[in-house]
Amino acid sequence: MDLVAGGVCAATGFLAAGARAGIKAEGLDVALIGSERPCAAAGVFTRNAFISPCARISRDRVRAGLPVRGVFANSGCANACTGPAGEADIIAIMERTARALGERLPGVDGTVLACQTGVIGRRLTPDRVEDAIDAAASGLSRAGAADAARAIMTTDTRPKECAVEFTVGDRTVRVGGMAKGAGMIAPNMGTMHAFITTDIAVEARALQAALAAAADETFNCITVDGDTSTSDAVLLLANGASGVALDGTSRPAFTEALRVVCQELSQAIVRDGEGATKLVEIRIEGARTSEDARRAARTIAESLLTKTAMFGGDPNWGRILAALGRSGAEVDPNRVVLDLGGLVLFRNGAAESYDLKSAERAVAGPEVAVHLDLGLGAGRATMWTCDLSYDYVRINAEYHT
Amino acid sequence: MDLVAGGVCAATGFLAAGARAGIKAEGLDVALIGSERPCAAAGVFTRNAFISPCARISRDRVRAGLPVRGVFANSGCANACTGPAGEADIIAIMERTARALGERLPGVDGTVLACQTGVIGRRLTPDRVEDAIDAAASGLSRAGAADAARAIMTTDTRPKECAVEFTVGDRTVRVGGMAKGAGMIAPNMGTMHAFITTDIAVEARALQAALAAAADETFNCITVDGDTSTSDAVLLLANGASGVALDGTSRPAFTEALRVVCQELSQAIVRDGEGATKLVEIRIEGARTSEDARRAARTIAESLLTKTAMFGGDPNWGRILAALGRSGAEVDPNRVVLDLGGLVLFRNGAAESYDLKSAERAVAGPEVAVHLDLGLGAGRATMWTCDLSYDYVRINAEYHT
Repeated sequence: MDLVAGGVCAATGFLAAGARAGIKAEGLDVALIGSERPCAAAGVFTRNAFISPCARISRDRVRAGLPVRGVFANSGCANACTGPAGEADIIAIMERTARALGERLPGVDGTVLACQTGVIGRRLTPDRVEDAIDAAASGLSRAGAADAARAIMTTDTRPKECAVEFTVGDRTVRVGGMAKGAGMIAPNMGTMHAFITTDIAVEARALQAALAAAADETFNCITVDGDTSTSDAVLLLANGASGVALDGTSRPAFTEALRVVCQELSQAIVRDGEGATKLVEIRIEGARTSEDARRAARTIAESLLTKTAMFGGDPNWGRILAALGRSGAEVDPNRVVLDLGGLVLFRNGAAESYDLKSAERAVAGPEVAVHLDLGLGAGRATMWTCDLSYDYVRINAEYHT
Repeated sequence: MDLVAGGVCAATGFLAAGARAGIKAEGLDVALIGSERPCAAAGVFTRNAFISPCARISRDRVRAGLPVRGVFANSGCANACTGPAGEADIIAIMERTARALGERLPGVDGTVLACQTGVIGRRLTPDRVEDAIDAAASGLSRAGAADAARAIMTTDTRPKECAVEFTVGDRTVRVGGMAKGAGMIAPNMGTMHAFITTDIAVEARALQAALAAAADETFNCITVDGDTSTSDAVLLLANGASGVALDGTSRPAFTEALRVVCQELSQAIVRDGEGATKLVEIRIEGARTSEDARRAARTIAESLLTKTAMFGGDPNWGRILAALGRSGAEVDPNRVVLDLGGLVLFRNGAAESYDLKSAERAVAGPEVAVHLDLGLGAGRATMWTCDLSYDYVRINAEYHT
């Protein structure tokens, strides 16, 4: 399996474009993805009770197993908490997108999915994006992936793309995608969006199972601030253009390729978390159960004490243990081993003697590895988080509605 | 019921003192409370798996129903995660305290409780505090309450005391206490300690029930950063010196007095949360169940988005709804009514039309009231939190172990 360029258009038969509708103060803010063939679609969506209309409608279309021809996305306005009027707006936008895609890529059946991100509580009326949709549709190209990756950005400081390929016999399969960040969207809401495409041939149901499994150990294992949004979504489209079907032969490589793309994109989101200066991996082993491991990893990953200590470059293991101890996971302090970047700091219920300079080095770089063995069972989990800096507060306090 | 001066020594028969052992870089760091009569004791303790030895031993002594003669407290060193050696240290310190109290207040039976707060993972050996214990014991007085309230401070910017009195016939009953803050302790750990005394006459069991009920709606309803410590404890001592017993006549007034003291102390902790500039009340009504109400209140109170918006003075109701929507509480967006400082911002599934200046005024002051009616049932809960500022990050990132 090799990394390749091309992002969300690396897979054969996918085209993309970015356009400016003027929703954000500057830059591209509308992205389209189109497929030259109908796609099977899978999706993972926010569980927030205030799910935005675009996420709910896309979820329902994916669940219904409808073939998909493309995706509309915008930044700068989440169109959430906008009542029936907001729902009518996004339905009209999706219809307009379907029409524009139909003109540019005639003969392709299928529905359109949509992802919106930005201010909550404000509508995005169709008239504000119609021209941008038409411009993006007529400009669709494989090279447009880069513009699309920029158009979905909000407080992201850089676009996030990843693609890989593998071969089955003499045929090449690609999986590629783009994502936007898990901090809050300027000025108001946090949203994680990822768009992944592949040219493998697969039914929607099997595609959904593959995405759910991959998301479970990647997108569902990252946290910037514990706040999930009304609009979070990961979409996966498969158009079959590679001529390779998902079967016993191709499955291991496809599963791995999808996991790699999901992991790269999800870690890129954390690295670019609002104000983040470090990527912190929290790995739990030896928990009584997997649920315990996940609970422990998540509690530590979301602990403000741990995150501020990481920002300060402080190997403050007491804060990590205190978070573990309140996580609800079964813990026997005498069995816990805490390892920071390869240095064991705590074992047998008390501090090890260690060199403070070495411990400080373990948290000084842009990547920090926290490893805890609970010594109780076979449960394991890994979460990725970032540190909590002044810039997080600045970004989220200084904007005004 | 009237507010009175005197803090933890407002109730008859309680004496206190602060002393300096040199654990912290400067200031008082050891506090003693002594009673002229044996006390019934109640306590609420951290549930952290890494519970510190002083909290575990005090908890066991309270649960055993032992009469109590006094309390040792220190700041600057939590003596947690220190293994059997740390346990032996605090036992020796408690014995030394019992001896010193026995000399100063002879003829009083009872055991000693202890609360320690500060750096995790470092021992506090008895030799470092013996002189301070002796000095504090010989200096015990009613006026010493103020020194004791200072000696337990860590990153607190001010001491926290409160006392009230009420009469039963011609007798006066007092309930008073002191507390230290719920941010992290400099440089390492967060701990909430509260010490409350009363001169009502009551059995330990009934006292525990009264404290548990009061803590449940006060100390258990505050959050600064969601991180709980290895050492959190609320202690309540009752020595009977008022001559009034807890019975059907005195119970309503005592319950209310205890609630007022617990609420004042717990809100003082939030107001003085690390970096806090605002006290934010999150009140939930109309939840399907009380558990739902509490879950919703806590999720909003701990949402970094909500807390940074409050710091920024931004009436950002989308963040509040997004936190509510991910809380796990049952929510029907169309029934939710969101009120910020008396101004309804969201109703019937969409934004109300409101005056932005008025909404900004609702979050501009030192106290902010967020009120949500979920419209589903009779469940209600209130949580108190503070905003998240640059100073929170500074305090917790710039210290080093």
